[in-house]
Amino acid sequence: MSKVGIIMGSKSDLPVMQDAIDILKEFNIDIEVDIVSAHRTPEKLFDYSKNAHTRGIQVIIAGAGGAAHLPGMVASLSPLPIIGVPVKSSNSIDGWDSVLSILQMPGGVPVATVALNGAKNAGILAAQIIGSSDKTVLNKIIEYKEGLKAKVYDSAKDL
Amino acid sequence: MSKVGIIMGSKSDLPVMQDAIDILKEFNIDIEVDIVSAHRTPEKLFDYSKNAHTRGIQVIIAGAGGAAHLPGMVASLSPLPIIGVPVKSSNSIDGWDSVLSILQMPGGVPVATVALNGAKNAGILAAQIIGSSDKTVLNKIIEYKEGLKAKVYDSAKDL
Amino acid sequence: MSKVGIIMGSKSDLPVMQDAIDILKEFNIDIEVDIVSAHRTPEKLFDYSKNAHTRGIQVIIAGAGGAAHLPGMVASLSPLPIIGVPVKSSNSIDGWDSVLSILQMPGGVPVATVALNGAKNAGILAAQIIGSSDKTVLNKIIEYKEGLKAKVYDSAKDL
Amino acid sequence: MSKVGIIMGSKSDLPVMQDAIDILKEFNIDIEVDIVSAHRTPEKLFDYSKNAHTRGIQVIIAGAGGAAHLPGMVASLSPLPIIGVPVKSSNSIDGWDSVLSILQMPGGVPVATVALNGAKNAGILAAQIIGSSDKTVLNKIIEYKEGLKAKVYDSAKDL
Amino acid sequence: MSKVGIIMGSKSDLPVMQDAIDILKEFNIDIEVDIVSAHRTPEKLFDYSKNAHTRGIQVIIAGAGGAAHLPGMVASLSPLPIIGVPVKSSNSIDGWDSVLSILQMPGGVPVATVALNGAKNAGILAAQIIGSSDKTVLNKIIEYKEGLKAKVYDSAKDL
Amino acid sequence: MSKVGIIMGSKSDLPVMQDAIDILKEFNIDIEVDIVSAHRTPEKLFDYSKNAHTRGIQVIIAGAGGAAHLPGMVASLSPLPIIGVPVKSSNSIDGWDSVLSILQMPGGVPVATVALNGAKNAGILAAQIIGSSDKTVLNKIIEYKEGLKAKVYDSAKDL
Amino acid sequence: MSKVGIIMGSKSDLPVMQDAIDILKEFNIDIEVDIVSAHRTPEKLFDYSKNAHTRGIQVIIAGAGGAAHLPGMVASLSPLPIIGVPVKSSNSIDGWDSVLSILQMPGGVPVATVALNGAKNAGILAAQIIGSSDKTVLNKIIEYKEGLKAKVYDSAKDL
Amino acid sequence: MSKVGIIMGSKSDLPVMQDAIDILKEFNIDIEVDIVSAHRTPEKLFDYSKNAHTRGIQVIIAGAGGAAHLPGMVASLSPLPIIGVPVKSSNSIDGWDSVLSILQMPGGVPVATVALNGAKNAGILAAQIIGSSDKTVLNKIIEYKEGLKAKVYDSAKDL
Repeated sequence: MSKVGIIMGSKSDLPVMQDAIDILKEFNIDIEVDIVSAHRTPEKLFDYSKNAHTRGIQVIIAGAGGAAHLPGMVASLSPLPIIGVPVKSSNSIDGWDSVLSILQMPGGVPVATVALNGAKNAGILAAQIIGSSDKTVLNKIIEYKEGLKAKVYDSAKDL
Repeated sequence: MSKVGIIMGSKSDLPVMQDAIDILKEFNIDIEVDIVSAHRTPEKLFDYSKNAHTRGIQVIIAGAGGAAHLPGMVASLSPLPIIGVPVKSSNSIDGWDSVLSILQMPGGVPVATVALNGAKNAGILAAQIIGSSDKTVLNKIIEYKEGLKAKVYDSAKDL
Repeated sequence: MSKVGIIMGSKSDLPVMQDAIDILKEFNIDIEVDIVSAHRTPEKLFDYSKNAHTRGIQVIIAGAGGAAHLPGMVASLSPLPIIGVPVKSSNSIDGWDSVLSILQMPGGVPVATVALNGAKNAGILAAQIIGSSDKTVLNKIIEYKEGLKAKVYDSAKDL
Repeated sequence: MSKVGIIMGSKSDLPVMQDAIDILKEFNIDIEVDIVSAHRTPEKLFDYSKNAHTRGIQVIIAGAGGAAHLPGMVASLSPLPIIGVPVKSSNSIDGWDSVLSILQMPGGVPVATVALNGAKNAGILAAQIIGSSDKTVLNKIIEYKEGLKAKVYDSAKDL
Repeated sequence: MSKVGIIMGSKSDLPVMQDAIDILKEFNIDIEVDIVSAHRTPEKLFDYSKNAHTRGIQVIIAGAGGAAHLPGMVASLSPLPIIGVPVKSSNSIDGWDSVLSILQMPGGVPVATVALNGAKNAGILAAQIIGSSDKTVLNKIIEYKEGLKAKVYDSAKDL
Repeated sequence: MSKVGIIMGSKSDLPVMQDAIDILKEFNIDIEVDIVSAHRTPEKLFDYSKNAHTRGIQVIIAGAGGAAHLPGMVASLSPLPIIGVPVKSSNSIDGWDSVLSILQMPGGVPVATVALNGAKNAGILAAQIIGSSDKTVLNKIIEYKEGLKAKVYDSAKDL
Repeated sequence: MSKVGIIMGSKSDLPVMQDAIDILKEFNIDIEVDIVSAHRTPEKLFDYSKNAHTRGIQVIIAGAGGAAHLPGMVASLSPLPIIGVPVKSSNSIDGWDSVLSILQMPGGVPVATVALNGAKNAGILAAQIIGSSDKTVLNKIIEYKEGLKAKVYDSAKDL
Repeated sequence: MSKVGIIMGSKSDLPVMQDAIDILKEFNIDIEVDIVSAHRTPEKLFDYSKNAHTRGIQVIIAGAGGAAHLPGMVASLSPLPIIGVPVKSSNSIDGWDSVLSILQMPGGVPVATVALNGAKNAGILAAQIIGSSDKTVLNKIIEYKEGLKAKVYDSAKDL
């Protein structure tokens, strides 16, 4: 069965990262949540990244703030697609630091970056990745998009 | 068989996007290249995006510069995972315009954004997405990463 | 009779876009307000943009936040002058994302961009566009500007 | 007959502003070109702006670089729609200065801003403004857009 | 007797500009305060700027926010030294717009720009300009600086 | 007789600072040029700044690049008006470093900042400061501005 | 015995700089705290910087906001390693001014810059500098890092 | 004997990092140069960082470009003071990416960041760190600073 690993650099990132958890549950996709800090638990980072694909994880979502090295370091160590969520943490310079330190990866080691605090989109992207080879999930995505559309039509009625 | 769609907003994006074509050929992944402009051929954008998944495409890579709407609009219309490549075009404001107009997608419609001009990483990410459910491709990714490593060790010898 | 179409990407943009509605009412110009999301209702975007000019709309004001593709996509599909209002939405990177993704349109497809959250100016600009071929409206603009002047003179008296 | 005024702050802006001249000629729209510097010829700025609408000009395109005050000051003095072209001049800080000093106009005095160096789009926008009340010009715009489309389809064939 | 003119684009700038008023009163320098809007009262701008030096004003301090054209336009029209105060107004993009549209003046027309919201420093600078040819004021500046020094020594004692 | 001190942090700043020298010579104002580095010759900085006003200097122009501390430190030590010229040096981050480290002085210690590489304007501003109490110089400024105007009118004739 | 000097430009920087004080106390390293303003007490800056190394201080931590010249000027005058803490003060432009005016020092005069408001890290870095030649302190650093690790593992348990 | 480790993410960083090598040789400080890529050789990164302090290295200088994770990851794994050099690489967004991903480290894991491409200053800072407990090196620093001063005085003579 498909599984998405969701990790974050600190428990303080959980309020942002919860959106990824919620949307993946909505899609009925198995998740595994953990705290892995590139800077404070580098050994755990190594173990996690080297082994995730061997125990059934297909996609990893990694969220971090400031000089955010977690997504890029996981991408360095794992062959899986890694989705990076820039988190706007308290002493961030308006979020630019996390955005740029996740997005601007060197050639050879991509991180699929989503918007600042865009954990919900990270979850949907993980579902789309699974859906690219799994018709059931693909259909759920199609259905989900129909739902988005319906909500906009409804909100327009209230004007 | 797996297939990756590669589109770009203008032929002038080809020198940058060629890196995605080359790396996917290196991984022996089938590609289909086209020019689709969100602003000049919106009907083609619609047709392309609505139908790509029905004819075997699993991932779409879309590159564009300036106010880059192509990746986001494809993501709006297709259920597939969309990888966006911000291209630093001639009148760009240092690339910030393409980076932000691809990255900062609203909740519900993700684009997997890579670095400015990072078409090579877009290709690798597409391969990783396919590899997440295809062992052969996954092994090629693992092998590719070993190759990167070897090159660094070699270059260190020359110091 | 002249008519201005006002659309926005989400109902959450209404508090900002209300300023355009109010000022156009003040100028006695007919308006039509709707919610059209480039990313969630792309088909509505197509229909709206392709047909607006055929049913008497002369100018379209489109407001959106983040990676704001609505104004540019309407400009892609409609021959009318399109005014774009960058909205500073909640997860925006200080508004830069909406400003740049509306302003930096490629050659061939202009969007008349106003200041961040500048919906009032979008309304005035729409009136000026109508006024460029309609003396009555032009005179209202001239009168409006006299009113602005008078208010400054009054406020200077209070010093 | 419709007429567009094109002014620029310095003769050094002409290479950029020429694109507006060329496209308006292509649309067969009458133009009038002049150099008006907000900072060096403020009296000419006053005369020009106060009188343009009285001698048949319907839209004004104003281009300037650095702390670009020309478009905003013309907008202050004329009731016409003013299109501002931020020019990336030699000592500009990457164009940000001209973009922000044209775009961020206060409530009451809009400038329709186009992309950095986007004089071509300024010309098209002027044509669209005229076209909003002139069927012949509107049809030329529709035709022009068909031409853009055709060029993209052609360029895709060469891939 | 020396006199400093203090003007601002809108009454809403007064809370920031008050610091200039206060410090100049502390230096016993004559001031004259007015509201002059480049965009809403361009004629008043002209009259004020053309005549200030003829009625004894030696330095002008001009504060404005957003696309702040007031200081630069006064500098265009007056031969006096003009001090510009970028004001961080409500819809400003973090103050960058007012800073750049005051600072980046073209060659020939300088504005002496101070820090964002730095009206106090504008007042001190005006006093220094007068002090450059007036020994009494120069000595007050020297005294003022001694006072700043004393306060730091005092605050260090409390540690 | 009036005198302006022109200093720069490094001889490599001379090509930029020459514009200040040239324009002041054009205005027949006495100048004194020196190299004073805040970071490499702090003692010279102290001596220069403490004594400039005692030997007839009325205004100091200080140019520096990168983390540009020269203008602010001179302002800390001298009671004279200090004009700061941000120089775009080779490893500068697009000039932002020198602009911000000169402009954003704390309350109490102003630096009159001009545009990036704006040494010419620094020279004109110094002349305006002298002109604020010296009719002969004031008249030269008025004449100079007439010259600027004439050049624009001439360049418009060539169109 | 080892000693770290901690200085700041203003007492208002103390809430941020307290983190450096606290962490160094935790490491049992002797500290000396003072207020030294580059702009208001330049003589104290000179005395402090010239003499710190002669009375046993091994590292200096200097915090300042806005156009922050304190760390760089101390670095100019002292042979010791200087750690700069950019402080986000009230009228700062989002902290960019203090970051750039501390970081971008010219060749020859380094400042070891830490993150915006990163006084805690400045304290740890000072300890590491002492630890580079003092085994006892080095071991405390190793221990401290183990503590960080343990806290992450603990927080992961709570998920 | 003291030793400084100098590492860089890629051989393409050598032209920038050579300045650190040269200045440390000038100070007669032992160096050890290697290529260690956080993203391509993560195992080497681990080995290097964990063991550097056990074989006599006292300070590590790490240079990297783009999303530069090398300095921060070494800081995560080593108890030594780490100096980070942001390198402006080819696809960098004007250097902001490397500056922010090195500077903005989270609390607990400092990196002593120097200016963009500031490898020379990284070398001097390493010498100062050694000099903080080694009189001979401290005296060399004092001498070096005298040399800087002399050069400025000489260059002033040529004016």
